Amino acid sequence: MPLSPDQTAEIAAARATPRMTLRAVSEGMEAHLYRAHDVLDHGFIRVIDYMGDDAAIVQAARVSYGAGTKHVSNDEGLIRYLMRHWHSTPFEMCEIKLHVKLPVFVARQWIRHRTANVNEYSARYSILDREFYIPAPDQLAAQSTVNNQGRGAVLEGAEAARVLDLLKSDAGRAFDHYEAMLADTQPDGSPQQGLARELARMNLPMNTYTQWYWKTDLHNLFHFLRLRADAHAQYEIRVYAEAIAACVKDWVPLAHAAFEDYRMGGENLSAKAVAVLKRRLAGEVVGWEESGMSKGEWREFVGVWG
Amino acid sequence: MPLSPDQTAEIAAARATPRMTLRAVSEGMEAHLYRAHDVLDHGFIRVIDYMGDDAAIVQAARVSYGAGTKHVSNDEGLIRYLMRHWHSTPFEMCEIKLHVKLPVFVARQWIRHRTANVNEYSARYSILDREFYIPAPDQLAAQSTVNNQGRGAVLEGAEAARVLDLLKSDAGRAFDHYEAMLADTQPDGSPQQGLARELARMNLPMNTYTQWYWKTDLHNLFHFLRLRADAHAQYEIRVYAEAIAACVKDWVPLAHAAFEDYRMGGENLSAKAVAVLKRRLAGEVVGWEESGMSKGEWREFVGVWG
Amino acid sequence: MPLSPDQTAEIAAARATPRMTLRAVSEGMEAHLYRAHDVLDHGFIRVIDYMGDDAAIVQAARVSYGAGTKHVSNDEGLIRYLMRHWHSTPFEMCEIKLHVKLPVFVARQWIRHRTANVNEYSARYSILDREFYIPAPDQLAAQSTVNNQGRGAVLEGAEAARVLDLLKSDAGRAFDHYEAMLADTQPDGSPQQGLARELARMNLPMNTYTQWYWKTDLHNLFHFLRLRADAHAQYEIRVYAEAIAACVKDWVPLAHAAFEDYRMGGENLSAKAVAVLKRRLAGEVVGWEESGMSKGEWREFVGVWG
Amino acid sequence: MPLSPDQTAEIAAARATPRMTLRAVSEGMEAHLYRAHDVLDHGFIRVIDYMGDDAAIVQAARVSYGAGTKHVSNDEGLIRYLMRHWHSTPFEMCEIKLHVKLPVFVARQWIRHRTANVNEYSARYSILDREFYIPAPDQLAAQSTVNNQGRGAVLEGAEAARVLDLLKSDAGRAFDHYEAMLADTQPDGSPQQGLARELARMNLPMNTYTQWYWKTDLHNLFHFLRLRADAHAQYEIRVYAEAIAACVKDWVPLAHAAFEDYRMGGENLSAKAVAVLKRRLAGEVVGWEESGMSKGEWREFVGVWG
Repeated sequence: MPLSPDQTAEIAAARATPRMTLRAVSEGMEAHLYRAHDVLDHGFIRVIDYMGDDAAIVQAARVSYGAGTKHVSNDEGLIRYLMRHWHSTPFEMCEIKLHVKLPVFVARQWIRHRTANVNEYSARYSILDREFYIPAPDQLAAQSTVNNQGRGAVLEGAEAARVLDLLKSDAGRAFDHYEAMLADTQPDGSPQQGLARELARMNLPMNTYTQWYWKTDLHNLFHFLRLRADAHAQYEIRVYAEAIAACVKDWVPLAHAAFEDYRMGGENLSAKAVAVLKRRLAGEVVGWEESGMSKGEWREFVGVWG
Repeated sequence: MPLSPDQTAEIAAARATPRMTLRAVSEGMEAHLYRAHDVLDHGFIRVIDYMGDDAAIVQAARVSYGAGTKHVSNDEGLIRYLMRHWHSTPFEMCEIKLHVKLPVFVARQWIRHRTANVNEYSARYSILDREFYIPAPDQLAAQSTVNNQGRGAVLEGAEAARVLDLLKSDAGRAFDHYEAMLADTQPDGSPQQGLARELARMNLPMNTYTQWYWKTDLHNLFHFLRLRADAHAQYEIRVYAEAIAACVKDWVPLAHAAFEDYRMGGENLSAKAVAVLKRRLAGEVVGWEESGMSKGEWREFVGVWG
Repeated sequence: MPLSPDQTAEIAAARATPRMTLRAVSEGMEAHLYRAHDVLDHGFIRVIDYMGDDAAIVQAARVSYGAGTKHVSNDEGLIRYLMRHWHSTPFEMCEIKLHVKLPVFVARQWIRHRTANVNEYSARYSILDREFYIPAPDQLAAQSTVNNQGRGAVLEGAEAARVLDLLKSDAGRAFDHYEAMLADTQPDGSPQQGLARELARMNLPMNTYTQWYWKTDLHNLFHFLRLRADAHAQYEIRVYAEAIAACVKDWVPLAHAAFEDYRMGGENLSAKAVAVLKRRLAGEVVGWEESGMSKGEWREFVGVWG
Repeated sequence: MPLSPDQTAEIAAARATPRMTLRAVSEGMEAHLYRAHDVLDHGFIRVIDYMGDDAAIVQAARVSYGAGTKHVSNDEGLIRYLMRHWHSTPFEMCEIKLHVKLPVFVARQWIRHRTANVNEYSARYSILDREFYIPAPDQLAAQSTVNNQGRGAVLEGAEAARVLDLLKSDAGRAFDHYEAMLADTQPDGSPQQGLARELARMNLPMNTYTQWYWKTDLHNLFHFLRLRADAHAQYEIRVYAEAIAACVKDWVPLAHAAFEDYRMGGENLSAKAVAVLKRRLAGEVVGWEESGMSKGEWREFVGVWG
């Protein structure tokens, strides 16, 4: 259970006190505010704040005095045009702030997206909670035999049991020792100094949960989602990206639909790939030998186009 | 008059339709929303949107589930601590979006602050308005004789009149020719092709007004204000910075007060300056020869400390 | 002529003094160092410094102790893989520094690329040169009738002559008045105070030339080139992008070739476009009505695929 | 020993092949290139490449055609002026690329500096080495009793021994299990699938060593050094900052000296602190009650000024 009764009460209190504003409001996003969407075994994402909506994208693109265009259909056409032609600045006019609880090894991938604002829970200042990510059985997978950075078949039987046991027992023991090093008494009750928190934390494994406030604009969020909601992303970050994407869909439905069409569902073709497709459309049979592509590239091409 | 009746009506309409939100609300900032604050002769700033308030800074610094601390006095102490120790990320959790109308030569200084999002009115796509910045008489100053990038005494009499006349007549003529080049008819009514907008604009002077949507976080805004609301900044950008600072004061009063104390009203001392002050505090008389400073540095030091 | 004899001598001196280094060296780039490549009527680009080469990209991607792989063919394959899968960080490991002379209206487009370092010649501090961009006759084009931000046919005859005359005379007069306002004497020789440089500059038109040092990494440079060397970019910035691209080709030939194949020569397909192409490859005739695309989108699609 | 014989040989080979360049060369930095400077028990920093020198800072500030000024004393004065007045862009014209080996918990602090380029060794793709940071006895400190994020007295006797034993045994066991989970055989030699590397890594503790290529410009490096070479930074990152600072001193001695004087050795005073100092300089005795400062602020003030 990621949330304590106190935390649940704080969230309920925050949702119980609506106030008046003159700002742009997204009803879809208001429904998400503060609520924890569970991710993995102990993680979550919570939308803490947002700025702007679909109309704000249009308004900024036009540098206009009022809000959006007169008709939603015009807004949609303009948003699709902006997405198609890689206009990034209008999408930067929307902003989102999230509270995220996530394993450290996921946080280390996530933080590589630099155009965001982050405040992480400090393990120099505070003591971490005893919470670790332990994969569900269907995610406990073997190393892929074809992809150097991917997973293959799910582990089975005794091997799966051994791995789960190791992950759980090592994490538990590491945390016991973390607490023992921090403590001002020894197990027998005699006093000790207690190791500095900034040192003791180094004993914890990378599946320890941490949490942060993370804020970014919609353009950079789409970039994050394109890379991290992608099938090649590691499962443990992909589920966070998917949970965020579901909120984005309710927040800016027009921009999200354009993103789905042009980015997530689209394809990038190289000049060589364009040439092959044009020859095929003209009725030619074109194979790897005539493509000019490497074997890996051809495999990816055939994966999409047959 | 920077705003047309249509624009004024759009702003009034935007202010007439409050809505419910669960987000953090700053009453001080709600009062500013959409309203145009006049700057220079035809410019303005308008707050279009904002995210967060003083409590949001505290909440992010603590990575907490609820909002802020229980007592405002605690919030103030923490905010001052964060500002004093150069913690930048909690201030990044607040965001502001402005609509600004400003002369091109001011926009060129402003844009050098890179950590912001900008959508500028496009003179490739649209035709600019006939509006130019003409300095007020008390701002029509001579080149400074001591500062290579500053102004000295105000121009007087015939010289001031000549300068104003040149600025006005050159701008007016340039705009007449801009329109003539764009037009699809010649002055005599016979047709012509009309020059492309992306070319015709090059004839306009740099006091032409442009406008943009500009969005940044509070940390980077404070950095902007520190440099641009400073006495060494050019007057024409300083007045924009001051107009924005007045809104920030109403938006996040605690953070603004800390900024005033530690940044705007504070001083940076070099190691050499620290040494001089310590010797003076010990009763020594220390002059330039003993300071190890250059003459320019000493002049600045004496300007503050006597 | 963009360069004075003094400047030419400084460049020759810089090229006459080779020194020893243990750093990665790109012979192709050494040939460009300091030399001015003319752009437009008075502009140029000059490569002032660079960091890294193709092998440095590979080295960083592998976090290796030595340089690159053993075989160039391996480097090429890895670089193409990185480009195909949008790995940006290895390309960020190369850096370039340019000295650029360019019209102000071009500089205003260019500066929108924020992930770069810029030092611009200061017109608060210094007096600008009397140099303006005047389009060559074959670039003096009418407004496009189909593209709101593009040009159409070249102007002809009397209209072209009128436009050229206006651009030249307005720029010349504006510069005369700039000098007159700055001067410490009036035309009749009697003294005057002289307007501050930071004010006088506002009288100059946007085709005035400025110059800057501009430094960026290879990933962000490729992004700049993709947008600015594109056929939809304004001609006056495209020629700068093309001049830079020619240097990049000599600097990092493998990375440049991958960029050409995957970015400049490639195509982005939306999910809708993928669906249409797959149906066409299966022998179906698919027109606009069945595509689900807007008219503008379909026009762009047909422009590529027929 | 952080380097294997192969790695040592690669470094020697890189240092054995000087080449000619026309670029700016810093002799002080050439002496550092590729060499590993040991940090902590298994870490290092190595300078892999650099761009620019002191003269390049001056050249960019002046947007000049040649290199620097005629006299080093002029360069020094200008560099000090730029540093004193917070001109950041000229310092951005120098760039450095480092290869760093560091514990994960240090990497997590380091990466918070976002304006840098990073390529980290991938534990999805590769298997990590069996190397952990174990503090030296004089760094094994208790939690500070006055600073929530600092250390106090060094642990002694049995407690120190217990902590070292826990850190070593937990890290060793975690790595044994990491290898066991990855292996394609069980300890008894019978085959198993082997857990995916991207999952197995989560069992490793945060004192595991990782490595990366890290590239940044001199302005942002100075900012990093100011925060991380500071006495309040955690020891384990401070020693990296100090090792880098020693290289910077040899690379750009004038800029480094200005940085030392204005940033590392300087002091920031709030408006309140300025007021107190001015009253003291005028002979008044001013204590906490009259200062308007909080107790924490006053303690810091007295720490410097008595």
